[in-house]
Amino acid sequence: MLDINAGQYELIYNSFSFGIAAMGAATLFLFLNRTTVSANYRAAVTISGLVTAIALYHYVRIIESWAGAFTVLNGTITATGARFNDAYRYVDWLLTVPLLLIELILVMRLSRAETTSKSFRLGGLAILMILLGYPGEVSTDPTTRWIWWASSMVPFLFIVVELFVGLKKSIDSQPAEARGLINNARWLTIVSWCFYPVVFILPMIGVTGGAATTAVQIGYTIADVVAKAVFGVLIYQIAVRKSEVEVAAHAATLGEVGAVARPANA
Amino acid sequence: MLDINAGQYELIYNSFSFGIAAMGAATLFLFLNRTTVSANYRAAVTISGLVTAIALYHYVRIIESWAGAFTVLNGTITATGARFNDAYRYVDWLLTVPLLLIELILVMRLSRAETTSKSFRLGGLAILMILLGYPGEVSTDPTTRWIWWASSMVPFLFIVVELFVGLKKSIDSQPAEARGLINNARWLTIVSWCFYPVVFILPMIGVTGGAATTAVQIGYTIADVVAKAVFGVLIYQIAVRKSEVEVAAHAATLGEVGAVARPANA
Repeated sequence: MLDINAGQYELIYNSFSFGIAAMGAATLFLFLNRTTVSANYRAAVTISGLVTAIALYHYVRIIESWAGAFTVLNGTITATGARFNDAYRYVDWLLTVPLLLIELILVMRLSRAETTSKSFRLGGLAILMILLGYPGEVSTDPTTRWIWWASSMVPFLFIVVELFVGLKKSIDSQPAEARGLINNARWLTIVSWCFYPVVFILPMIGVTGGAATTAVQIGYTIADVVAKAVFGVLIYQIAVRKSEVEVAAHAATLGEVGAVARPANA
Repeated sequence: MLDINAGQYELIYNSFSFGIAAMGAATLFLFLNRTTVSANYRAAVTISGLVTAIALYHYVRIIESWAGAFTVLNGTITATGARFNDAYRYVDWLLTVPLLLIELILVMRLSRAETTSKSFRLGGLAILMILLGYPGEVSTDPTTRWIWWASSMVPFLFIVVELFVGLKKSIDSQPAEARGLINNARWLTIVSWCFYPVVFILPMIGVTGGAATTAVQIGYTIADVVAKAVFGVLIYQIAVRKSEVEVAAHAATLGEVGAVARPANA
């Protein structure tokens, strides 16, 4: 059973509620604004909203499972015996991590062949990474955890290399106005993702007990909000910027540059 | 009563939750994007969304029935005595399987007469297949199960033959740009559907107990997600591709090829 005190329980509970509010708000924002970008980028913004919607669903399940695992009465916490289901996170990642990578690929608007091949390669590596992490997560044996952690790190590193090297070339072909933002999105992915394998290691290096549980749960929640909601808004901004550039270019060819409408305010 | 352990219970529970998230995300995706395809294909995309919406409803019911059939306290699983209602799957298939076949027919945009006749023939065979499978599914007697399985396989094989032979001719008349994707959709249907009669047989060939229940429930869930959500996205991609081809052909007849807008990026 998890060994936590009432204060830690409430802090974790509140972080899950923060996750629900942040994911819900991001979903509304992305779905309401998807028609303010040009048709070429609508799929990227729609998928960003799907990712936060899926995360919203899982945070509702997570907070319910958390509330069912303990009762706090007059400041005294008691475990109910029901298990806190941490696996919701893995189910979430299995769906959302490939979609996050596809968002980034779609907003770059590469050739159709490149979009398909990069989506399959990165999406496949992401699924492999999550599946290999799960057997370690559910184990309490440090050796088992290290083996699966290391296995999971292999596809993880392939993804990071692909984002660093493989996408670098494609970024240079992006319009100058959007290049900075796309670079930010790439870095946000790399940095926020690095948090997960570090959190995974904590119990293996002796960080256990209530404080560790609190750090892990709040840490995962913040990382999820950054990697999904903040990242989604960034993808939206890239889509707005690139729509503007393309509308301006199209208007220029029609000789009516002055009449360009900004498709949305970014 | 089902003989499973706590770990198997949780694995099955999590696979149902995965089904809810995947069907919900697919429904949002298909409904949000239905207006991005030309009017000719909107019905196909709408029906794809209906299929995942119906499945979403049933997975919510299934997970509730599953949660009500057992309690897990401190790692010990106890059957509550309430029956896990597996019939939700049959009710789901009765509605969704004919619709899945109709999706595929609609996206091919055959003549009106052919669309109607193929929809009735394939839809009718699908309903017959589900109805004949059900008496076997609820029986524990192997002989009874084999008789109904064999009866159900007759319409099943007719559908497979129709997809192989009957649709082959129609596929050759599709635009070259969409032919590969339609072929994928046809194969995805055949392969994912083959899973169901195999799962049905498992208890008859001695695969019983907790491991079998786990394999059956997780297997059905994965097959459902592939046959409905992945298939629906594939139908959407076909609709996008064919809309593009038709818009381009229309623009060419108007002599303004340069101004073709891509309706969405697939």
